[in-house]
Amino acid sequence: MKLEAQWITGFVDGEGCFHVGINKNSEMTAGYQVLPEFTVVQHERDIQVLHALKSYFDCGVVRKNHGDRMAYRVRGIEHLQERIIPFFEKHSLKTKKRMDFEKFRRVLLKMKEGVHLKPEGVEEIQRIKEQMNRGKLR
Amino acid sequence: MKLEAQWITGFVDGEGCFHVGINKNSEMTAGYQVLPEFTVVQHERDIQVLHALKSYFDCGVVRKNHGDRMAYRVRGIEHLQERIIPFFEKHSLKTKKRMDFEKFRRVLLKMKEGVHLKPEGVEEIQRIKEQMNRGKLR
Repeated sequence: MKLEAQWITGFVDGEGCFHVGINKNSEMTAGYQVLPEFTVVQHERDIQVLHALKSYFDCGVVRKNHGDRMAYRVRGIEHLQERIIPFFEKHSLKTKKRMDFEKFRRVLLKMKEGVHLKPEGVEEIQRIKEQMNRGKLR
Repeated sequence: MKLEAQWITGFVDGEGCFHVGINKNSEMTAGYQVLPEFTVVQHERDIQVLHALKSYFDCGVVRKNHGDRMAYRVRGIEHLQERIIPFFEKHSLKTKKRMDFEKFRRVLLKMKEGVHLKPEGVEEIQRIKEQMNRGKLR
């Protein structure tokens, strides 16, 4: 299955999610670990679409989500910075999910600068995170 | 907002629905009315995307759905036959929703032949309808 960029943008406008996790982790100097991820969840009947996304971006994994749902997931910082973000910079999302993407992009830029390695940087990222994924249907 | 065909296909793969309603209606010779509809539901924050779909297809309506959700909806038989169906014939859906579309298309072709105006025709459409929208997430 070959995907076109505009199809991916439309599909992600519907089904994609840009999420930033912040977990306590005593091994990190800041006491917290920042975990950005891009996911697309589908019923397992459409697993081939998730594999096609994985092939297109040439990164990430396809894994079981909950119940009969599967997820395409990219967590690698470099993959997010070098493949996912440039793609959606070039092919703008059309729904308000674009605003989540912009915040996600800001977090990744801050991580490139090492901001997330200091406690005050994690707080800064936390404030961006709080403005994401509001008004979601699911 | 200008939409591209491939974006629409990707978005509908995620968010669209091809549905056939069959309602009792004593005014119809067959005793039932067949009501096919194409819908795309979104949170009200993305109403502008629904209006962009309406402009693209130049048919249908944008209406309140449930709660804070809005729907773009096409119910007109001719609009479905002449605008929606040819679009998705040309731009194939990539998820299993394509199978729902194929059944929806079969129902519309049967309606063009007037099959739905006879009781045995409604039964035939009912059998197609029963195979639609299985394994849905929502």
